[in-house]
Amino acid sequence: MISTIGIAAFDAAGPLAPWRFERRDLGAHDVHICIMYCGICHSDLHTVRGEWGPCRYPQVPGHEIVGRVISVGSAVTSWKAGDLVGVGCMVDSCRHCQPCADGLEQYCDNGMTGTYGSTEKETGRPTQGGYSSDIVVNEQFVLRVPDTLDPAAVAPLLCAGITTWSPLRQWKVGPGSRVGVVGIGGLGHMAVKFASALGAHVVVLTTSPSKVDDARRLGAHEVVVAKEAGAMASLRNSLDLIIDTVGTPHDIEREMQLLRLDGTLVLLGGSPEPHPAPGAFTFIMKRRRLAGSLIGGIAETQEMLDFCGRHGITADIELIRADAVNEAYERMLKADVKYRFVIDLATLHAPE
Amino acid sequence: MISTIGIAAFDAAGPLAPWRFERRDLGAHDVHICIMYCGICHSDLHTVRGEWGPCRYPQVPGHEIVGRVISVGSAVTSWKAGDLVGVGCMVDSCRHCQPCADGLEQYCDNGMTGTYGSTEKETGRPTQGGYSSDIVVNEQFVLRVPDTLDPAAVAPLLCAGITTWSPLRQWKVGPGSRVGVVGIGGLGHMAVKFASALGAHVVVLTTSPSKVDDARRLGAHEVVVAKEAGAMASLRNSLDLIIDTVGTPHDIEREMQLLRLDGTLVLLGGSPEPHPAPGAFTFIMKRRRLAGSLIGGIAETQEMLDFCGRHGITADIELIRADAVNEAYERMLKADVKYRFVIDLATLHAPE
Repeated sequence: MISTIGIAAFDAAGPLAPWRFERRDLGAHDVHICIMYCGICHSDLHTVRGEWGPCRYPQVPGHEIVGRVISVGSAVTSWKAGDLVGVGCMVDSCRHCQPCADGLEQYCDNGMTGTYGSTEKETGRPTQGGYSSDIVVNEQFVLRVPDTLDPAAVAPLLCAGITTWSPLRQWKVGPGSRVGVVGIGGLGHMAVKFASALGAHVVVLTTSPSKVDDARRLGAHEVVVAKEAGAMASLRNSLDLIIDTVGTPHDIEREMQLLRLDGTLVLLGGSPEPHPAPGAFTFIMKRRRLAGSLIGGIAETQEMLDFCGRHGITADIELIRADAVNEAYERMLKADVKYRFVIDLATLHAPE
Repeated sequence: MISTIGIAAFDAAGPLAPWRFERRDLGAHDVHICIMYCGICHSDLHTVRGEWGPCRYPQVPGHEIVGRVISVGSAVTSWKAGDLVGVGCMVDSCRHCQPCADGLEQYCDNGMTGTYGSTEKETGRPTQGGYSSDIVVNEQFVLRVPDTLDPAAVAPLLCAGITTWSPLRQWKVGPGSRVGVVGIGGLGHMAVKFASALGAHVVVLTTSPSKVDDARRLGAHEVVVAKEAGAMASLRNSLDLIIDTVGTPHDIEREMQLLRLDGTLVLLGGSPEPHPAPGAFTFIMKRRRLAGSLIGGIAETQEMLDFCGRHGITADIELIRADAVNEAYERMLKADVKYRFVIDLATLHAPE
């Protein structure tokens, strides 16, 4: 067993705190990673506070992991000690269903194994996430991180990045596409960077006038403050794809009206309550579509990381010490972060 | 001007009654058709009762038209007197926007001209529909009807048929597809016939146990009475496409749960109030899509009619006399029709 220090939640209401636990022994196909950085995703907070269902405590969250390989199992040939690697939202899946065969492990028919909060197949224990010193992961769920990028700013690519990259690829965004991005936070700011780098015309829809300049800096060609009705009207029937990253109920009908024929609005935010329903004619009159998308597959995540390496793309982050996680959660709830907190795990100390 | 007898609504509440009016003179590109049969679509009722917006009276409804060409304009080469032809929901469009160029006239950026209730470009008057003795239509909006089919039973293909055919083609239904059909009425019964003829496995979802035998006769391979929770559960994550023809608000989340990865639920019914909204996770977890679809383009309508000719497909109809339209409306409101009323316009008499 590999002695590990993590930052765990012990109940739904209290603060996270250091916790000592053990990772499984290295199997033949496993990779032992020393974690350097881990991003803080809103899902982490939803999970440890029990907002997405019961949580088994102690729970170490975190699924935006960058680190270096320490050692590998006897059968591992793709990885070696010293490699700069990443781990995202999944550490396993059934590996034989059709979605797995198609590289869509996130949609595994038998249920993928989440990096935290799932049950580890090898041990039957809850999986524990990346707010920790070490992790042991099957070689097939390890990603290669381009060493030209700042590894701390790579961490959010493993969830916020792939979650926005995957729909942009699924809906074939490229030169000539007109893409809307709703919500400029951890996911939204990556959607703007990616869509712009893919050659699309990018329109940011935001409710915050304070984000206009920032959206342009990130790569948006147009920024519309959604409270301004005239600005919204000028975009009517004009967008091919809208990436909606907002995780609370809001008026998606207004957004759908901006879609042209055969356009799609993709929901990425796991709003606990449904959005108010758009009317049937909003769908019918332009054959518009409303869809969702869940992170991305392993091969697609590697594709994204390689793209980021070629284009010099990373997340905009605020690097924090391990003892600042609780404060970061409070600030995240107020959207007071540009645009992702990343924990520097070199600052992690064992519990007293 | 061409003297015409129609069956018109004179206000939102009163009965329809015979009315004498004039069709425009035959232009160089026009076709003058003697109408033999016209189907009764639920849209007719919504329109004349003002449920879809203000209606200009008198209004002759009807957009499922089959008849014979009487004469053609000087420039018409594709049609000649005696041809068996059809006219559907559109009689014109701008003919130069991208959707028109793509054969998607129903989504014309400048607004297609509806067979009734629109404004006729040539005269500036309201268009009047197919519950009438004659119609004058631009040659590009006339369809060829296979003469091997019962022309009365062809009439509903011009709306109910193409409205279900178009999404089956758009979402590439064929052998191996698993298609759900919700609602067995004018549209739904055609969706079952088409999906079955295209080689799909067809599952009918109905709330009426009385429709089980009929759904099988129409070509369904499975019929699920949607009130039976166990039956619905067995279909979870199993369908590629659901054609939902129901025009009143209902629980589409339950239906969407039946879609497999990347499956689509297509709304065809113009429900005046939105359906209760499905939760975001229903979209996200299987990358499911909710879409709409509006009738179909002219080329696609001809494709459908030719397919029907080859496969011997028509609608199941109840042929009525012209003076039975008001009674038919009342029965349609109670879903008391298998599955489409068609008016025999040979029984139409001039108003006294």
